[in-house]
Amino acid sequence: MKSVSIIGVTSYTGVELLRLLSQHPEFVVTSATARSAMGKRLDEIFPQLAAVVYKDGKAAVDPALIITEEPEQTDLAFVCLPHAAAAESVVKLLERGVKVVDLSADFRLRDVHVYEEWYKHIHPAPALLETAVYGLCERYRERLHNAPLVANPGCHVTTALLALIPAFANNLIEPDVIIDSKTGISGAGRSLALPNHFAEANEGADAYALTGHRHMPEIKQELEVAASDAGYPIPNGLRITFVPHRIPMTRGILSTSYTNLRVNADGRVPTTDEVRTIYKDYYAGEPFVHVADQPPQTKWTYGSNHCFVYPIVDTRTNRLIVVSCLDNLVKGAVGQAIQCANLVYGLPETLGIAGVGVNP
Amino acid sequence: MKSVSIIGVTSYTGVELLRLLSQHPEFVVTSATARSAMGKRLDEIFPQLAAVVYKDGKAAVDPALIITEEPEQTDLAFVCLPHAAAAESVVKLLERGVKVVDLSADFRLRDVHVYEEWYKHIHPAPALLETAVYGLCERYRERLHNAPLVANPGCHVTTALLALIPAFANNLIEPDVIIDSKTGISGAGRSLALPNHFAEANEGADAYALTGHRHMPEIKQELEVAASDAGYPIPNGLRITFVPHRIPMTRGILSTSYTNLRVNADGRVPTTDEVRTIYKDYYAGEPFVHVADQPPQTKWTYGSNHCFVYPIVDTRTNRLIVVSCLDNLVKGAVGQAIQCANLVYGLPETLGIAGVGVNP
Amino acid sequence: MKSVSIIGVTSYTGVELLRLLSQHPEFVVTSATARSAMGKRLDEIFPQLAAVVYKDGKAAVDPALIITEEPEQTDLAFVCLPHAAAAESVVKLLERGVKVVDLSADFRLRDVHVYEEWYKHIHPAPALLETAVYGLCERYRERLHNAPLVANPGCHVTTALLALIPAFANNLIEPDVIIDSKTGISGAGRSLALPNHFAEANEGADAYALTGHRHMPEIKQELEVAASDAGYPIPNGLRITFVPHRIPMTRGILSTSYTNLRVNADGRVPTTDEVRTIYKDYYAGEPFVHVADQPPQTKWTYGSNHCFVYPIVDTRTNRLIVVSCLDNLVKGAVGQAIQCANLVYGLPETLGIAGVGVNP
Amino acid sequence: MKSVSIIGVTSYTGVELLRLLSQHPEFVVTSATARSAMGKRLDEIFPQLAAVVYKDGKAAVDPALIITEEPEQTDLAFVCLPHAAAAESVVKLLERGVKVVDLSADFRLRDVHVYEEWYKHIHPAPALLETAVYGLCERYRERLHNAPLVANPGCHVTTALLALIPAFANNLIEPDVIIDSKTGISGAGRSLALPNHFAEANEGADAYALTGHRHMPEIKQELEVAASDAGYPIPNGLRITFVPHRIPMTRGILSTSYTNLRVNADGRVPTTDEVRTIYKDYYAGEPFVHVADQPPQTKWTYGSNHCFVYPIVDTRTNRLIVVSCLDNLVKGAVGQAIQCANLVYGLPETLGIAGVGVNP
Repeated sequence: MKSVSIIGVTSYTGVELLRLLSQHPEFVVTSATARSAMGKRLDEIFPQLAAVVYKDGKAAVDPALIITEEPEQTDLAFVCLPHAAAAESVVKLLERGVKVVDLSADFRLRDVHVYEEWYKHIHPAPALLETAVYGLCERYRERLHNAPLVANPGCHVTTALLALIPAFANNLIEPDVIIDSKTGISGAGRSLALPNHFAEANEGADAYALTGHRHMPEIKQELEVAASDAGYPIPNGLRITFVPHRIPMTRGILSTSYTNLRVNADGRVPTTDEVRTIYKDYYAGEPFVHVADQPPQTKWTYGSNHCFVYPIVDTRTNRLIVVSCLDNLVKGAVGQAIQCANLVYGLPETLGIAGVGVNP
Repeated sequence: MKSVSIIGVTSYTGVELLRLLSQHPEFVVTSATARSAMGKRLDEIFPQLAAVVYKDGKAAVDPALIITEEPEQTDLAFVCLPHAAAAESVVKLLERGVKVVDLSADFRLRDVHVYEEWYKHIHPAPALLETAVYGLCERYRERLHNAPLVANPGCHVTTALLALIPAFANNLIEPDVIIDSKTGISGAGRSLALPNHFAEANEGADAYALTGHRHMPEIKQELEVAASDAGYPIPNGLRITFVPHRIPMTRGILSTSYTNLRVNADGRVPTTDEVRTIYKDYYAGEPFVHVADQPPQTKWTYGSNHCFVYPIVDTRTNRLIVVSCLDNLVKGAVGQAIQCANLVYGLPETLGIAGVGVNP
Repeated sequence: MKSVSIIGVTSYTGVELLRLLSQHPEFVVTSATARSAMGKRLDEIFPQLAAVVYKDGKAAVDPALIITEEPEQTDLAFVCLPHAAAAESVVKLLERGVKVVDLSADFRLRDVHVYEEWYKHIHPAPALLETAVYGLCERYRERLHNAPLVANPGCHVTTALLALIPAFANNLIEPDVIIDSKTGISGAGRSLALPNHFAEANEGADAYALTGHRHMPEIKQELEVAASDAGYPIPNGLRITFVPHRIPMTRGILSTSYTNLRVNADGRVPTTDEVRTIYKDYYAGEPFVHVADQPPQTKWTYGSNHCFVYPIVDTRTNRLIVVSCLDNLVKGAVGQAIQCANLVYGLPETLGIAGVGVNP
Repeated sequence: MKSVSIIGVTSYTGVELLRLLSQHPEFVVTSATARSAMGKRLDEIFPQLAAVVYKDGKAAVDPALIITEEPEQTDLAFVCLPHAAAAESVVKLLERGVKVVDLSADFRLRDVHVYEEWYKHIHPAPALLETAVYGLCERYRERLHNAPLVANPGCHVTTALLALIPAFANNLIEPDVIIDSKTGISGAGRSLALPNHFAEANEGADAYALTGHRHMPEIKQELEVAASDAGYPIPNGLRITFVPHRIPMTRGILSTSYTNLRVNADGRVPTTDEVRTIYKDYYAGEPFVHVADQPPQTKWTYGSNHCFVYPIVDTRTNRLIVVSCLDNLVKGAVGQAIQCANLVYGLPETLGIAGVGVNP
């Protein structure tokens, strides 16, 4: 059993960690912090936790645990703070020998200049950018073993990368992509804001961050790695447009990616069947990524760590369109973080997060 | 390991059984029937099942299982058919020595005349009404052990009974109750009907079955048992009004029950604190029923087998109001059915259904 | 043409007034106030107003109107402030000779002690409580003509009163009622609060204000007037329980009222048909209250000033159940306020608010 | 006053016509047909119509109107039938001298071969394809005057065309567009189907018709006209990808269009400000199309005939992105049909459809 801290427990990622870890056989939450809720029990903030079931008198989460300002010493910490605050916390935790999975963006971008351009502040620990392992398990599984610091990917980012990496890895497409992403409102977090007020968000859809969303450079970084690994010459980098949209649902991201197919060795573009075979091969054996036989719906993944990917060739335009979806709070955040933690400790990768989506 | 059939697998209770049993360590689904989907794989009907995770090459649910018309021989069957069809299936299964949890209403009412009045057809196996154990675990836990046939309670019924039984058991209230119940749309099942069409149901709330809902006699039966056990003289039975409402959400039932308090031995009505203490004592040790400290929200229970109960005294009128909520597809149906099955086999009652609600 | 001020225009009642008045042929908004948005154009706060259509170069609402701190002099003002602040504003407006429709609770309760008990502050202008006409048009139509001050009823209150007044007026029921009311989230207003955050409210239903909601004394006051007018002896007042619930939709209130029928002159309780006839007679000629032939759905009234009422006798218990619904922002607030204003000026009562509900 | 028939009144376009025409001062519905509802009153099918308000004893819609199989003789008919059935009805109506606005796709495509390829049946009246005026008022306003037959545009089509026509008309972009469109569920109509069942659609988002949606050739046709008019050489036609998505709301379409900017006369691509000026000029004076100052939300248009368009330059890729939205049942169907009918009769274009969106 490993002891776990949750730093910033009053967030949606915090409470989702509590839900999933309550069923995890190897992690036990022994510390939870949140400045705004110091001194309170977990179930005062999240009353549904009163329903935690005990096994042999023990649960992976004790609803009576008192929230503190600073974490107790634990084996592992999940950091659920906003960027900047997260980095400060991570530095301290690493100094205390705690393994860290950071759910913020602070250690995702390898180039500190890109980070500082997009996040508008000086990175407090740029040296750690080398140490951090990017927590997309399907790409960096080996490196995660024993990693001291995991940078857990963004939600839109995970959806987009799982859709597009196989295409780059197999030289299927031009280095020019458009990603149109639709997210449920929980993606905006638990902090109050008018666009996320029920009466404003319900029955409404809109695009946001049209001048540039911070998930764009993260997608770009990882797709460029995949393209480079596959031999793409991209001296000027990848051309990429990413537009996120808010739609009136609580959970779920659906990304539709538009790309231009390359002509293959036979002098033609591949068919949908050929592309699907390539994708199925690419994800063969992956427990959490599934190539769907029909356009997937976000609801297939509700509350689960699974991602569905659906590639199809638009034969009229020779475009490859890839639809992908997942639960932004699970595979897009907390489930993936636990998947990483399982890998860090050499545990079975699916431990505690194996369930299928709640549907309907 | 017990082998399990699901009879009528294309229903919402069918698919919810698949989801929950996929995580159950002692039950393995080896047979699934549905006339409308004969010959198809489970994941053709429910593509999210492609995400089932295998452990040592095995899962409690194989997405490639072929749906048949008649069930294979198994240890246990969950019957997810409409009433009447369910009874016919149950009779055959029992003859084959299969233990049965019937999710229909066919064996819930002990009085065959009441059944025939409300369900408008001749009961095909009235003798079995004696055999069947009513599957409200909190009441009939002991009887469920080794029971050949379990009549799984209705969803509104479970919500109402868990709210009101402690009050009758403790002689707190008059034998006259009003239950105003609000249900999510999944309660109406997977069959298409205009009121459950998205564009009709969304942003709409209405009352239905105002001339009498079939869950009423079931609530009445069980509350009368509780009242009789507590010594109530109710020669004319309980006076009860039950009005269900549809509200625009997928899952969840919230019932608000209105009753009149009795004067206690001190010549006064009890306080909220006193009532809460009585309720907490009544449900002490129950893994799935929780007396909440604040008005509970259906969402606390989303996807889980838990029920929250909140009693409060309206001091201006000396009424006891009890708010209760649960997930209609889990504690209101499938989760409770698995809880029953666990008890039938002497397994830990919470096996496979211990998780807390998906929230937010 | 009458000039109109909207005091507190950044509220949901403010913007709904802008929407409805943009189609009103006799009222033109010439002043709008809001401390938090001073100096801004209306369409900076509510961009959908850019779509106002001009007729002969004129519209009842100019999207470019600048929001001010204090109102300009106008014929009429709608006050959309929270209680207490509203009363202060009303006093000043009346001194300037402006006719006022106050949408707050400040002038609804005729007994200043009841007001101060429920609203926990000293009423700044108790003398005006006599002057104010309670704006339930169906009851006080005549008094509204030329009234200087209208106290616009609460949203739950309107729904409950329209359901129950005919029953008291016709001596049908005992003076003991339970009102179970379900409201969409816009009823909580535009101010941010966790329970109204989309991810918290969506897929959730709960009861609130169980120790007492401020709409209760208002319902009680008006039902007692109706009962007294009908000759009820109620020395100790009406016995009333009112429980509001939040359900996941933007607009709409559905109230289910439970009462006990009196025995009529024939020594029996009336039938549903008899009660329906009484209700139809009571509301004959009313443009906005309709006795429905089937249980009504809130969505029938979406965006409209209409209310549907559905009485039915529970023959098993001799209870009269009345279901009623309306749009909380229209007949429950702004539409009723305009209806009142039409009556104040002797205009046709339906002017500018005649539309049917947006459905689906 | 013109008399109006609604052919196929039990559809969502049928009931929306009833709602909007109930407020129209010049059109009176004197006939309504629907095979499935013959002999019933309008308000038996749509009970909310009981709330129609009469003016001088008259309303533009009488809720007691009896639905027939064949229409009465009227001045004008709105045809709300599925394709193929619509064409048959249109032919008969034209023979009787009735002016027709057809809401189906039967007369939208000018090339009968394209029609037959996409709709998979022989067109019954190809000669009328020349007669029909495509009902995008902003493009074909003049031709609509006195037109005997109007082909009302598709919902996704209107959203896309209003976003992209100004760009083609001003030579801003390459003839290669991607349109990612998100629609509310009412777009699928009133017929029952599993994907539109509440419990399936709620909290779910997916893409559909990925192998080709019938709105694509319609968008292509009209963009090619716009491009040709602007002097584009497009011998092989426009390259276009259109992907529609279902999102969990009742009404509204949001389209995000992705295009590549052309270099202008100054040897550079235009700025967002320049593009916005061009769009504002293009739509100057349009009563129903508005160039928004911020990304628009579908909810701004709920229940209204307005469309918001928001162009922005992605400076990293020199793409022009245009977000556009409207209510699929109003500007995307019925409101636009009434706008057309107003123009056919030389009435003010905004008559009866001037309202702003219901918001929140």
